Amino acid sequence: MRVSPGGRPATGYDIVLQAGVLRETAAFLTDRLPDCRAAVVVTDGNLRDLAAPLTDALRGVGVASALHVVEPGEKSKSLESLHGIYGTLLDLKADRRACVIAVGGGVVGDLAGFAAASYMRGVSLIQVPTSLLAMVDSSVGGKTGVNLPRGKNLVGAFHQPAGVLVDPDVLRTLPDREYHGGLAEVVKYGVISDAAFFGWLEENAGAILDRDPAVLVPLIARCCELKAAVVAADEFETTGVRATLNYGHTFAHAFENLAGYGVLSHGEAVSVGMTCAARLAVSRGMIPPDVLTRQTALLERFRLPIELPAAVEAPPDAVLAAMRSDKKNVAGALRLVLPVRLGEVRVFADVPEEQVTAALTP
Amino acid sequence: MRVSPGGRPATGYDIVLQAGVLRETAAFLTDRLPDCRAAVVVTDGNLRDLAAPLTDALRGVGVASALHVVEPGEKSKSLESLHGIYGTLLDLKADRRACVIAVGGGVVGDLAGFAAASYMRGVSLIQVPTSLLAMVDSSVGGKTGVNLPRGKNLVGAFHQPAGVLVDPDVLRTLPDREYHGGLAEVVKYGVISDAAFFGWLEENAGAILDRDPAVLVPLIARCCELKAAVVAADEFETTGVRATLNYGHTFAHAFENLAGYGVLSHGEAVSVGMTCAARLAVSRGMIPPDVLTRQTALLERFRLPIELPAAVEAPPDAVLAAMRSDKKNVAGALRLVLPVRLGEVRVFADVPEEQVTAALTP
Ligand SMILES: NC(=O)c1ccc[n+]([C@@H]2O[C@H](COP(=O)([O-])OP(=O)(O)OC[C@H]3O[C@@H](n4cnc5c(N)ncnc54)[C@H](O)[C@@H]3O)[C@@H](O)[C@H]2O)c1
Ligand SMILES: NC(=O)c1ccc[n+]([C@@H]2O[C@H](COP(=O)([O-])OP(=O)(O)OC[C@H]3O[C@@H](n4cnc5c(N)ncnc54)[C@H](O)[C@@H]3O)[C@@H](O)[C@H]2O)c1
Ligand SMILES: [Zn+2]
Ligand SMILES: [Zn+2]
Repeated sequence: MRVSPGGRPATGYDIVLQAGVLRETAAFLTDRLPDCRAAVVVTDGNLRDLAAPLTDALRGVGVASALHVVEPGEKSKSLESLHGIYGTLLDLKADRRACVIAVGGGVVGDLAGFAAASYMRGVSLIQVPTSLLAMVDSSVGGKTGVNLPRGKNLVGAFHQPAGVLVDPDVLRTLPDREYHGGLAEVVKYGVISDAAFFGWLEENAGAILDRDPAVLVPLIARCCELKAAVVAADEFETTGVRATLNYGHTFAHAFENLAGYGVLSHGEAVSVGMTCAARLAVSRGMIPPDVLTRQTALLERFRLPIELPAAVEAPPDAVLAAMRSDKKNVAGALRLVLPVRLGEVRVFADVPEEQVTAALTP
Repeated sequence: MRVSPGGRPATGYDIVLQAGVLRETAAFLTDRLPDCRAAVVVTDGNLRDLAAPLTDALRGVGVASALHVVEPGEKSKSLESLHGIYGTLLDLKADRRACVIAVGGGVVGDLAGFAAASYMRGVSLIQVPTSLLAMVDSSVGGKTGVNLPRGKNLVGAFHQPAGVLVDPDVLRTLPDREYHGGLAEVVKYGVISDAAFFGWLEENAGAILDRDPAVLVPLIARCCELKAAVVAADEFETTGVRATLNYGHTFAHAFENLAGYGVLSHGEAVSVGMTCAARLAVSRGMIPPDVLTRQTALLERFRLPIELPAAVEAPPDAVLAAMRSDKKNVAGALRLVLPVRLGEVRVFADVPEEQVTAALTP
């Protein structure tokens, strides 16, 4: 699969989606980046065994390499971790032709991606996403970055990878909660841009839950295609097209802010958020109730919540305030991505706040 | 003057070169960035009085603004300073339409430029260079970045400004040593790309030393044009054209490394470096001795050294080792930019080391 961000073929790159492709990383690197002499493999502690063999393989093809392992979890997406990766690159005497290889979920991808974007004003990046979310979402589109103590993803760069290697085999070890969370984004692609894909998900829900490789490959491929198409239309998030990927997310970010750390995963928050968004669209008469019903059934089938756990205190006013402070809003007006039919969404900036709070509960 | 990096008009920006233009910054911003509602003015302690009025002017046109002052000097080009600027942006609730305004020399420009490149994956940047070096060199070309404890400019991004405002009046307060250092880069442009400009510098050397506004405007304009032309041919330093700007610099970086902190300014090191490079070209029969003589005379006229101060211990082997570790070298081979006539240089990767060391002394 070839991705051309912003429709510019010169910066296009390949997504290779194939069981076992993780083991081909060194060969891919020498093929695509023949001048590269040094590579740092960044991963997190949970994936050390998966990533470690790559450094040997790289040395085998004449590329000096080092493994850089960060703590698993969002806290590693920090300026401090970034500094650590720069140190490992310097230890390798990495020059501008060096490569950073991110083996992990979105945390490792975003962190290592920004290290690649900024070390010596930019070196090559190969993404090897290992979580479902990273495969279908974060590894496509070129967004990289780290958090600041005062907020998420506040620092970063757009930096397209030299290639993305997706090995569905590695999903076997992904914890259930992470896998189901990734499926929330998968459902999102169906609702925002592909009703036929949504139907395919409904038909294959059992095999998907079983992580059957026969369905995982087409599933991941379609999500990457759908995301890549959006990115191609709006590489730098300037035309508004990319905002459609935010379906369910303005609600979700508010829920994540209000819930305590670890109570609600991102995917779970998105699942509840899409439910609120679809409910809002129904209440405005924009979609028939059937779209909400089908979306709810699929999310529940994928073991995702459709309302907030009782433990989360989220009075409507607090939700609204948190939604208003979402950084995707322009000039303080609440911008919501709402479905206009299954497979199509639009951005609305004029939704009355009473409608929004009414949509928070069934 | 309009600059189109990489020849792409869509990303072009204006350099406005005019006495008093500093005071027009707020008007420029509202004209070019009508959506901007928040701007951070970054400067250093020596320039506080120059920069402070801008924040009032910005508030006057409805843009929330803050002054962020760093310590003068290279040490402020750090990840820590960067973090501080992010904090000021967050205090202003700056969103993606925000602007960073760099009022200062190359240190402030590089630091504030990288803050703009990375905050929320990139906000707008206006450069208001105040040192001669920043006016003729660092504010043109889009390079931004910070140092790491282990080396200079190791982290950064290419980020083109929305505009560059050059006010020659502010040069009045620039310390002599900084002014003369900037002239080393000015002489460089003549040697590498414009013999007529070199002749003009010789004719107007007196007025230039007096900082006569009547010569400063055409001087700065020509340097910006010459640098912009090189950058347009090689925006991301990939084709090798941009390497010509490195004339004298491989020597200079070695001298700066060997000299203690503060002994040799960058411009002084470049002046000695260009002298060595021209001498080397003469010894190889590439240029007549006359080119070296004229370059030497002009550098001396501009109060620049043409050999290392006695205090700097620089045995030839140490110089060579330092030159070899310059990050502009590819695969360890020494790459030198040498004149082939006044107004033209080429990159040479095959100069015998004995010739290099011989060129270190007259
Ligand atoms: N760049 C983008 O466009 C983009 C898009 C969406 C999300 N994100 C970012 O992605 C991050 C979330 O990504 P994530 O959900 O992958 O989180 P993550 O990277 O923290 O991974 C989740 C957990 O799963 C583990 N894991 C990953 N792959 C595994 C495997 N194959 N086997 C066993 N364990 C495995 C990880 O060690 C981690 O503990 C957030 O920081 C978010 O901001 C970025
Ligand atoms: N980005 C690029 O393309 C590029 C190119 C060349 C150099 N640089 C960088 O530029 C930096 C050097 O820049 P610099 O020489 O301007 O140093 P600088 O920014 O430290 O300024 C030199 C000194 O002059 C003072 N000063 C500046 N303008 C003044 C004025 N009008 N009146 C009084 N004092 C004034 C400053 O406060 C400082 O003390 C280095 O970090 C170098 O790496 C970047
Ligand atoms: Zn998401
Ligand atoms: Zn220089």
